[in-house]
Amino acid sequence: MAAINVLEKFNRFDDHWTPKLIAELNGQAVKLAKVSGEFVWHDHAAEDELFLVFRGTLFIDFKDRPTITLQTGELYVVPRGVQHRPRTNPGEEAWVMLLEPMTTAHTGAVRHALTQDACERI
Amino acid sequence: MAAINVLEKFNRFDDHWTPKLIAELNGQAVKLAKVSGEFVWHDHAAEDELFLVFRGTLFIDFKDRPTITLQTGELYVVPRGVQHRPRTNPGEEAWVMLLEPMTTAHTGAVRHALTQDACERI
Repeated sequence: MAAINVLEKFNRFDDHWTPKLIAELNGQAVKLAKVSGEFVWHDHAAEDELFLVFRGTLFIDFKDRPTITLQTGELYVVPRGVQHRPRTNPGEEAWVMLLEPMTTAHTGAVRHALTQDACERI
Repeated sequence: MAAINVLEKFNRFDDHWTPKLIAELNGQAVKLAKVSGEFVWHDHAAEDELFLVFRGTLFIDFKDRPTITLQTGELYVVPRGVQHRPRTNPGEEAWVMLLEPMTTAHTGAVRHALTQDACERI
C-alpha cells in the first residue's frame, strides 16, 4: 500500500451519493463521497457512522434532535439506530469522508434509487 | 454530541506523542496527536492503525519495506503485526489523526518513557 492523498482520490470521481472505498482497517471502511441536495432518510441498526467534511458544508438532519452542521474540517458520529438524512444546501456540493463498518449499506435497510449494492474501490 | 472541529481540538494541546481521544465509533477510537522527532519502534499484534496528516510531514519507517512519507491530507494504514516507527524531520512537528481500536496501546507491547496508559479525552 502507498500513501493515499485524499484530495487526489476525490478528484477521481464526480458522481453524487456513491461512496468510494479508499482504505480498510479493523473491519472498518474509509470511504469518500461527493454529495449534493438531500439523501434518503435511513439508519444503520448496528453501525455507528463518522462523517468528516473535506470541502463545503454538510447538514445532517435528525427526527429527534436538532440538525448538525458540519463545515470543512469538522466531523460527527451518527450513533447506530438513529434515523438521519445527510443534506447540502440546494445546488451546493460537499466532499465527505465516511468511516463505517465494511458491512454497512449506505442507505441502511432502505431500498432507494440512490442505493448502491457494491462500493467501488478507487 | 456536537460537531467536532478537528483544528480546534488540535489547538487544545501542545504535548508530543500523547494521543487525545476525540470520538469513538464501532469500538474504534479517533485520536489526535502532535508529534516531533522519533517515536519508539513498535507494532500492534491484532490492530491496524490509520494515520491521516492534518499539518506537516510524517514519516513512517518500517523494518521490512521502504519508509512512507505522508504530507498534509495524506493517509496510510499500518497493518497489524508490522513493526513501524512514526517520525518527523528533526525539529519539525506534524499533526496527525489516528484511527485504531479503543483497546490499542500506542506503543504496542513496548514499555517506553513515551508510553501513556490512558488516553485523555478532549
